[in-house]
Amino acid sequence: MEDVQNSPALVNIPIDRVGIKNMKYPLVVRKKNNGLLHTVASVNLYVDLPSTFKGTHMSRFVEALQEWNGILDYHSFVCLLKDIKNRLKARKSHVSFTFPFFMEREAPKSKSPALIDYMCYFSGELESNTNKMVMTLGVEVPVMTVCPCSLAISKKGAHSQRTVVRIKVKFNGLLWLEDLIAIAQESASSPVYALLKRVDEKYVTETAFENPAFVEDVVRNVSQKLISHPLIYWFKAEAESFESIHNHNAYACIEMNC
Amino acid sequence: MEDVQNSPALVNIPIDRVGIKNMKYPLVVRKKNNGLLHTVASVNLYVDLPSTFKGTHMSRFVEALQEWNGILDYHSFVCLLKDIKNRLKARKSHVSFTFPFFMEREAPKSKSPALIDYMCYFSGELESNTNKMVMTLGVEVPVMTVCPCSLAISKKGAHSQRTVVRIKVKFNGLLWLEDLIAIAQESASSPVYALLKRVDEKYVTETAFENPAFVEDVVRNVSQKLISHPLIYWFKAEAESFESIHNHNAYACIEMNC
Amino acid sequence: MEDVQNSPALVNIPIDRVGIKNMKYPLVVRKKNNGLLHTVASVNLYVDLPSTFKGTHMSRFVEALQEWNGILDYHSFVCLLKDIKNRLKARKSHVSFTFPFFMEREAPKSKSPALIDYMCYFSGELESNTNKMVMTLGVEVPVMTVCPCSLAISKKGAHSQRTVVRIKVKFNGLLWLEDLIAIAQESASSPVYALLKRVDEKYVTETAFENPAFVEDVVRNVSQKLISHPLIYWFKAEAESFESIHNHNAYACIEMNC
Amino acid sequence: MEDVQNSPALVNIPIDRVGIKNMKYPLVVRKKNNGLLHTVASVNLYVDLPSTFKGTHMSRFVEALQEWNGILDYHSFVCLLKDIKNRLKARKSHVSFTFPFFMEREAPKSKSPALIDYMCYFSGELESNTNKMVMTLGVEVPVMTVCPCSLAISKKGAHSQRTVVRIKVKFNGLLWLEDLIAIAQESASSPVYALLKRVDEKYVTETAFENPAFVEDVVRNVSQKLISHPLIYWFKAEAESFESIHNHNAYACIEMNC
Repeated sequence: MEDVQNSPALVNIPIDRVGIKNMKYPLVVRKKNNGLLHTVASVNLYVDLPSTFKGTHMSRFVEALQEWNGILDYHSFVCLLKDIKNRLKARKSHVSFTFPFFMEREAPKSKSPALIDYMCYFSGELESNTNKMVMTLGVEVPVMTVCPCSLAISKKGAHSQRTVVRIKVKFNGLLWLEDLIAIAQESASSPVYALLKRVDEKYVTETAFENPAFVEDVVRNVSQKLISHPLIYWFKAEAESFESIHNHNAYACIEMNC
Repeated sequence: MEDVQNSPALVNIPIDRVGIKNMKYPLVVRKKNNGLLHTVASVNLYVDLPSTFKGTHMSRFVEALQEWNGILDYHSFVCLLKDIKNRLKARKSHVSFTFPFFMEREAPKSKSPALIDYMCYFSGELESNTNKMVMTLGVEVPVMTVCPCSLAISKKGAHSQRTVVRIKVKFNGLLWLEDLIAIAQESASSPVYALLKRVDEKYVTETAFENPAFVEDVVRNVSQKLISHPLIYWFKAEAESFESIHNHNAYACIEMNC
Repeated sequence: MEDVQNSPALVNIPIDRVGIKNMKYPLVVRKKNNGLLHTVASVNLYVDLPSTFKGTHMSRFVEALQEWNGILDYHSFVCLLKDIKNRLKARKSHVSFTFPFFMEREAPKSKSPALIDYMCYFSGELESNTNKMVMTLGVEVPVMTVCPCSLAISKKGAHSQRTVVRIKVKFNGLLWLEDLIAIAQESASSPVYALLKRVDEKYVTETAFENPAFVEDVVRNVSQKLISHPLIYWFKAEAESFESIHNHNAYACIEMNC
Repeated sequence: MEDVQNSPALVNIPIDRVGIKNMKYPLVVRKKNNGLLHTVASVNLYVDLPSTFKGTHMSRFVEALQEWNGILDYHSFVCLLKDIKNRLKARKSHVSFTFPFFMEREAPKSKSPALIDYMCYFSGELESNTNKMVMTLGVEVPVMTVCPCSLAISKKGAHSQRTVVRIKVKFNGLLWLEDLIAIAQESASSPVYALLKRVDEKYVTETAFENPAFVEDVVRNVSQKLISHPLIYWFKAEAESFESIHNHNAYACIEMNC
């Protein structure tokens, strides 16, 4: 049967990334405590394509994923990248997973436990020449912000809102999603929780009003922690606040090689 | 050229709605003050199909929209519904538009004007037998809610958040989107604004903290106003609050024939 | 500490549904073959609220979910509904889960296996008076449609596209998501697959071109199978086709008590 | 009244971008033929913030937009960027608009006219030091692709699907969205249309089957045209194909300084 993909390309331009996008996959993620978390990921699988070939072989990406062990940790991730690079006879392979990650958190006073979710991102690119893998970790963490301006000028109260902190980092060595999530949570007026009894709601409200923070404060607090982290050499930190007094969002961003 | 659509259906079941969905269209909406607002709508255009015909003629829906005057008011909407019913030789036609609607609002103290947007919904169904049109209007209005529980139990502050109020109504006579938007805005702790100077932010914060409201309070306040409205005979009122202390939303809903 | 929720409502209107919306949850689903599937659900948990009480107690919903066994089958689902109704002292409880469901499918000729995902929906409402639970199952199944008109009039080829079939049903007894998925897949030009080698792609293309189908044909085929199903007493069947020759979608819908 | 934003920052890190995100705005776009198109944009407005100040003044962004003439062309866009930079006393300002753009297209044989929509992107960054504006234009164009492999190996037919082409470019001088849209449309198996009578559907089907194209072919065709364009010095070209035989998408990307 004819292999159209292997025929010569009519336009001789190399392609940076070609493959399959937005495939759903039942992923297992290894946690920092060595436990396993079952989740569902959206997966992108790409390789480069030299200028001489018309097409890549899309079914091989799915075969690679199908034969993979399905457990996301550093070692197995490298195996998947190598396998894809070999199956596709490529010089570069790129894989990314985006998935909700769950952690059990205790409420601050009642100590009632409950699961809370964070959208996470894990990507890597492997190159033949250097045989080096560049990895990127990312987290999206909901937090609470109390507006410092509203608090200073109002006789009573201050507007607060849900704010999402987004962090992406490149790093050497081993870094955990749990560490990035903690950095985000410690950088705003208060973390958010899944389960708060009244005694907890009182505590969270009072604590948050003691720590008012603009989106500017949040990204600076996050950046300060990332700069001083020994393994991280690049980051992008964003805060987007779903302002309770507006129908648009407040936003701040710092991107840095460090 | 063969007309496959006109051939007999193999499975003799009538179809309730068939047509085109999610078409983008540059709509002009007539405002309550008789002015015109330019916006962009997502449009659905459907008819019924008797059990005897294999298919409808999709291109005629686009022709009808293309030849329509493009100005959404009661009169022109009925014309569009009739035209579609006739072109498709159907017994029923159904059209819906979903679009952002803009209103200029003044800030409460500085009186600075700014545009604010509300997602709106306008649908109608026309039947041959009765020749009656059933219309539905809908609005999605962002508001601010201050939590009554958090306010009562905390020494300082209370969590607040952006809450969205969704209203859908069926009615007799003439009803304006502007009226439904006003009902939503008056039913929470405070309206939200696009532009607030510091003097306004102080006013909004203090006002909102004088009017704490659960999502339960918001839908009840909305419902009370809708029940007493002389033209409305059915409604669905929802409030969804993007809780600043949680990563999930609080929700309340009342649906009623009145 | 003051229980504001228990104080009397100022506006005496009963609330149909109040609770928490769009909570993420790591769900385990029992499959037809009795195996277990790990997935992630978006969960809504609601109760009714009489006209006399100001608010419901949102944290109890999260507690109920936290203490639930987390395995979705008929029995445990009823337990969750009863538990929520009791904790909230309500007359009605309503729970819905929306989640990707994975099935392993073999390619039609090479028999290569791969996982494919379907968005599924599982909801139930329990009432005190009748003590009866009304359940709704739903599936969203991607299929392939080849246009019968384009095929009949063109010298060569015919446009085809991905089409999504959405089915919701109410039923007595025990019904499986797998059964609804199969009904959708058998009602179009061809099922879609995650992994197709060239020999499979040839087979799927040729089979699909032997079975051209409009969205009208798809919903009729689905409806015919649902009507003749002994357990189903209500359904809504929709087909939405992401037309490859247009930027809008073709749509058909049949809703029926049967 | 206290100006909290002007107080010194506790963490002395400069912020790259701070401002408001995802504001809806009724935009007027100047077309290549000098006509005006009314649409609705999602707007982001940002400035940089030196390490010494705690916060920016968010309301000034809204004031700038409110006092702007609202007509997007090269000249007025520069005015908006300068105004924001001045009001916020910043060194850099950044503005982006994302909006549906409508063009009237004739069907290929019947010549029936109809509007079709393309999502477009227009952003610019102005720097004090250089006083130079860097602009980026972007378009998202739906096209049709017929699979060359499926066509070569099948006795009858070939799978086709809707594919979206995304182009972003940086350039010198004056470039029009209409030019980028045309480049995308000429690079696939066929353009898509809003309105096709049967004679047109026959023509589009037959033409597309004469021009089979992988996503790899599409991005190479687009890239070839962008490379040879005299004004463009950087581009990113992507094609994402909603495969009719799969539930995942095929994807290819070329990014280049040229």
